[in-house]
Amino acid sequence: MTTRQANSLDTLFRPKSIAVIGASATPTKIGGVPIAHLLRYGYRGDIFPINPQHQTIQDLRAYPDVRAVGKDIDLAIVAVPAAIALNALKQAAEANVKSVVLFTSGFAEVGETGAIVQRQIGALARTSGMRILGPNCLGVMSGESGVYATFSPVAGTGIVKQGNIGLVSQSGAFGGFAYSLARERGIGLSHWVTTGNEADVDMSDCLDWMIDDASTRVILAYMEGCRDGAKLVRVLDKARAARKPIVIVKVGRTDLGAAAAASHTAALAGADAIYDAVFKQYGVHRAATIDEAFDVAYAVSVGGLPRGRSIGMLTASGGAGVLMADEAASLGLDAREMPEHAQKQILARVAFASARNPVDVTAQITTDEELLPLSYRLMLEDANYDNLVIFQSAAGLSPRGPELVQQAVEMRAKYPDRVIALSSLFTPELHRQLDDGKVLAFADPSRAVRAIAALAGFAASGVSAEKVAALSAVQLADATLSEAGALAALQAAGIPVMPHQVATDGAEAAAAAERLGFPVVAKIVSPDILHKTEIGGVLLNLQDKDQVAKAFDELTARAKQAKPHARIEGVLIAPMIKGGVECILGMQRDPVFGPVVMFGLGGILVEALRDVSFRLAPFGKAEAHRMIDSIKARAVLDGWRGAPAADIDALSDALVALSRYAAAAGDKLESIDINPFVVLPKGKGAMALDAVLVIKQSKP
Amino acid sequence: MTTRQANSLDTLFRPKSIAVIGASATPTKIGGVPIAHLLRYGYRGDIFPINPQHQTIQDLRAYPDVRAVGKDIDLAIVAVPAAIALNALKQAAEANVKSVVLFTSGFAEVGETGAIVQRQIGALARTSGMRILGPNCLGVMSGESGVYATFSPVAGTGIVKQGNIGLVSQSGAFGGFAYSLARERGIGLSHWVTTGNEADVDMSDCLDWMIDDASTRVILAYMEGCRDGAKLVRVLDKARAARKPIVIVKVGRTDLGAAAAASHTAALAGADAIYDAVFKQYGVHRAATIDEAFDVAYAVSVGGLPRGRSIGMLTASGGAGVLMADEAASLGLDAREMPEHAQKQILARVAFASARNPVDVTAQITTDEELLPLSYRLMLEDANYDNLVIFQSAAGLSPRGPELVQQAVEMRAKYPDRVIALSSLFTPELHRQLDDGKVLAFADPSRAVRAIAALAGFAASGVSAEKVAALSAVQLADATLSEAGALAALQAAGIPVMPHQVATDGAEAAAAAERLGFPVVAKIVSPDILHKTEIGGVLLNLQDKDQVAKAFDELTARAKQAKPHARIEGVLIAPMIKGGVECILGMQRDPVFGPVVMFGLGGILVEALRDVSFRLAPFGKAEAHRMIDSIKARAVLDGWRGAPAADIDALSDALVALSRYAAAAGDKLESIDINPFVVLPKGKGAMALDAVLVIKQSKP
Repeated sequence: MTTRQANSLDTLFRPKSIAVIGASATPTKIGGVPIAHLLRYGYRGDIFPINPQHQTIQDLRAYPDVRAVGKDIDLAIVAVPAAIALNALKQAAEANVKSVVLFTSGFAEVGETGAIVQRQIGALARTSGMRILGPNCLGVMSGESGVYATFSPVAGTGIVKQGNIGLVSQSGAFGGFAYSLARERGIGLSHWVTTGNEADVDMSDCLDWMIDDASTRVILAYMEGCRDGAKLVRVLDKARAARKPIVIVKVGRTDLGAAAAASHTAALAGADAIYDAVFKQYGVHRAATIDEAFDVAYAVSVGGLPRGRSIGMLTASGGAGVLMADEAASLGLDAREMPEHAQKQILARVAFASARNPVDVTAQITTDEELLPLSYRLMLEDANYDNLVIFQSAAGLSPRGPELVQQAVEMRAKYPDRVIALSSLFTPELHRQLDDGKVLAFADPSRAVRAIAALAGFAASGVSAEKVAALSAVQLADATLSEAGALAALQAAGIPVMPHQVATDGAEAAAAAERLGFPVVAKIVSPDILHKTEIGGVLLNLQDKDQVAKAFDELTARAKQAKPHARIEGVLIAPMIKGGVECILGMQRDPVFGPVVMFGLGGILVEALRDVSFRLAPFGKAEAHRMIDSIKARAVLDGWRGAPAADIDALSDALVALSRYAAAAGDKLESIDINPFVVLPKGKGAMALDAVLVIKQSKP
Repeated sequence: MTTRQANSLDTLFRPKSIAVIGASATPTKIGGVPIAHLLRYGYRGDIFPINPQHQTIQDLRAYPDVRAVGKDIDLAIVAVPAAIALNALKQAAEANVKSVVLFTSGFAEVGETGAIVQRQIGALARTSGMRILGPNCLGVMSGESGVYATFSPVAGTGIVKQGNIGLVSQSGAFGGFAYSLARERGIGLSHWVTTGNEADVDMSDCLDWMIDDASTRVILAYMEGCRDGAKLVRVLDKARAARKPIVIVKVGRTDLGAAAAASHTAALAGADAIYDAVFKQYGVHRAATIDEAFDVAYAVSVGGLPRGRSIGMLTASGGAGVLMADEAASLGLDAREMPEHAQKQILARVAFASARNPVDVTAQITTDEELLPLSYRLMLEDANYDNLVIFQSAAGLSPRGPELVQQAVEMRAKYPDRVIALSSLFTPELHRQLDDGKVLAFADPSRAVRAIAALAGFAASGVSAEKVAALSAVQLADATLSEAGALAALQAAGIPVMPHQVATDGAEAAAAAERLGFPVVAKIVSPDILHKTEIGGVLLNLQDKDQVAKAFDELTARAKQAKPHARIEGVLIAPMIKGGVECILGMQRDPVFGPVVMFGLGGILVEALRDVSFRLAPFGKAEAHRMIDSIKARAVLDGWRGAPAADIDALSDALVALSRYAAAAGDKLESIDINPFVVLPKGKGAMALDAVLVIKQSKP
């Protein structure tokens, strides 16, 4: 068989005709449910039940074999036992079916025998070009075309309203739950898909299709793991460029969770911290809970993206204002103060208001009808906030509710580039009016602020996509390098390293020390001794030529004693560097995502607190800055306890250079550990003081 | 006037008769709303409208003056303008009214003139014994007695169901919002009270009353600040002893929030970190959001408290299991594995289940009717979990919903000492059945696990109350001590300090060094030089007698040069201490809560990350251990990078001793700073290497 061009997923989400292989006359059976749904919810294309035992199924003409249909089949739903599934798929491919939803379970999830058949299913998809969703999945629902290619019972109790949130879930149970939740919360979906075992179509394919889909404004994804990191990254990059926000619930953020995930899914998981880094890097919002994911998706769906991070908070309850301010501050929103003249206008009307931000107009808002319109105007026009949250206590349910809603909708129409959220309780009818008027509604004011922070995060990430020029291919040695070799390689890659010289005898060492300036450090140089301190291979703070010459002899003697067969390249002499902030820069290779760069401050505490950040290589300078900014101990670099601020610019340059080197070096480069990397005060640069570069040994 | 015994708050929450001073015939006016509510919702006691202009008000006989009623008045609602409020209160006191709800605003919240009158109101309450709620408050609602002593509009749109959650809010707007939210979520309240400006009755009084109230199972409080820390602590301690959980939303956790709070309320706030410590110490659950507060209060209300922290998680969706496991792990719940034989029974029934914990019985749960009962039995009986969460996707809304609910309710009845939570969607009717059957229901599985973690936290805190014997009064010097003086004071208090000796000449210093063992450190000793390193007053790593003698001269010379008038007590000689973990122990005085002990690891990063913990002094050893355990970098003390585990026992002893000293020392002691306090490897103890003890100077 030759590989054909893969079909687009259009036929999966918007099929013009659907065959059901293993169709059942009983509407509650796995092969009967989708036919019942398609009929009930008004699917307008052709439906071809395939079942050799029946002439008609659910009042439709049935066919004995998919090849007997004789018409174009966009989508075949396959609901036959595992033992005959592959055969059914082959027949579908022969009938030129464009895509398949394969409900059947009993493949990779039940062991190696099933995995073998699953690989054959994947191979069939690749050679035939027929796209296969599943196996072991709950299928697809797409309300706009009346497509209910699922046997999930959730559509049986009612369908969601048509909306603009695309939902992709690797888990069927989660998908069903999320569908019901959307229905109960009155949230509209554009498409719903569960990917199951992903023999062919995977989560990235579905994301990719929804990014292009005009009906989808935001994508909510549930992920357990990903096999093809590069593909996922390409898709996330495309989403960012298209400004189509993605919200992901990715399970397994703790060790216990990761262990549970491993026992649950056969998918290679990759380190959770790296997923986290990828999501940050590509502007994906990772939600810790289902509720959070829905809050954020709903907020994009209704409110769209704001211009920026500034937030105005208006309240009639000082306390609720403080709650919102706490949330805004801890999420890094820009809660700038109102302009002086706007504050004066508020205070002129309400003497005991707080007019800065949050603006607390007190209970007077219930008696003074002009107060709310005035506040809107001052906050949206004069203060020019990108986002506005208004806490209105329970007023949404009071007789004033409809008026409050109408005002908010009018304001949103007048300032279409702002996000406006009301925190109050509303009737379902008022909720609908707010949805239609693109105004957000949250009962809990903290959740309103959190949702806005997520929107601002999307807005910022779309702006900041950087192109990074690839480094031309790097020539790597055939084996792990000595410190001197590692430093040379890094220096060639544009990473600053300390002044140093490798001496091969005591006199040369002493001369080098004199040239570099006392005091100096002396370190044994050998590709066979990576952990120099363990053998006493480092001597610090040498004050004169005599000490340096002696140190040379001492170090070579120690090395020979500890590792008689080690290749000794000499002794490295470098000046003692005073001051600066010690950092760690590193690179490692993730099994899913490839080369990853790590940054953190030096010292035991950072390790104990896991206060490091990761990014996929390569990345540009803006991303390097975000990477630096995302560690918790960030303030240390700004000058702590009176120390001067560190040279962040030099640090970010080094991270970019390291990322480009890591990306260009290829699989042979296993890891880099630059520790310490000292960042000197602003304007003075930064430099690696030591480095280990581990290279995969070529097979001889 | 003499001070009379204050009345109990019984008359506020369960008045047998209510007068309304400033009663209005219009049911929507501030003086009319409470009468309308009382009539509408069937208050059974006497209602006495007070208004000299009317014979009847809302069909009730009106009185010209509260003193003209001539019957016992338990509660007077005062709804008159601020200018005549004090007079109305005096008349009420003359009429022997037991308690007052004072709606009127225009006191401390509008400036100093108002504050003066407010203080007079407080004084009237104290001298008369009449309890006054407010001013500037929305009053009280207590459904069981039909008491709606409020002008909040929220009761106008419907009342909450009678329940067992007591709600106390300092803010009226928040109180009204929370009331509506409870009604919308179908959550029942026992009593509802807003305390406003707290001229007399404050939040602590209301908490105190609800702790004694048999109808209240859990208290949900909204707090902006507290003036009397000692009173609050007494009440929280009482709640813990009574095992009555308190959930608090305390605003102002960020700098921005604290600034907003300061501009909003005149109440002295105290440092937010200290509130946080008090809540931890007394087993209060501090909720970051309103939703979280309701989740936790609802969980106690319906589910009660579990026996312990172990949690079993059952799911038909592996992914939801991982979500729950992530949450359980990050909240420190005990997600222990199922016993071997129980796992085997699960696997015998479902070959491809995960049977450890979370237990994933796969979609087979929908076809195998015996699977859920078996899982219940194995998890509650064999694994004996204290808590059980079951994720059932959207099945609660399916035809199987009623059966799932019934099973859960039966299981809870069979195992009444366990907490059972279902994560699914349910109809309001099924929700009611679950409430009645004491089974928790949450849509979001993460929220279910979070609520259980909060319950387990309450359960643990009740058990662990410790009594700490008071230290007999400490004699403090009249001024700040030198390091030697501080070390002596701490040693006398039972805090270990390094071996040391203060020498008054070079020879004595050299002899001391020889006795203590080289290398030694030498430090200038003067009560006038607290920051010794700033003047070069410390010399490290002295190797022999000669160096020590020279160091003595050098240090005294430096001190004289830097501070010519400093009183020099000598030079302190101490051995250089190697190894161990450097910590900081401290004590400071909070304006609201008094003496507070602080603990953290040493070093710049801990400061940058604010990774320290606080506790009110005094406290016992178990609390000291919790205090140590609550820093993020806790793992460093367990032995990091191959270092030996630190002597936690000695560290906790020192913290307890410091707390008892701080509690006994009185207001003269301003602060203690023990930095570094070195904790040596297990069994080797711990010791202060330096200390500053700041004493408030007596006025001459």
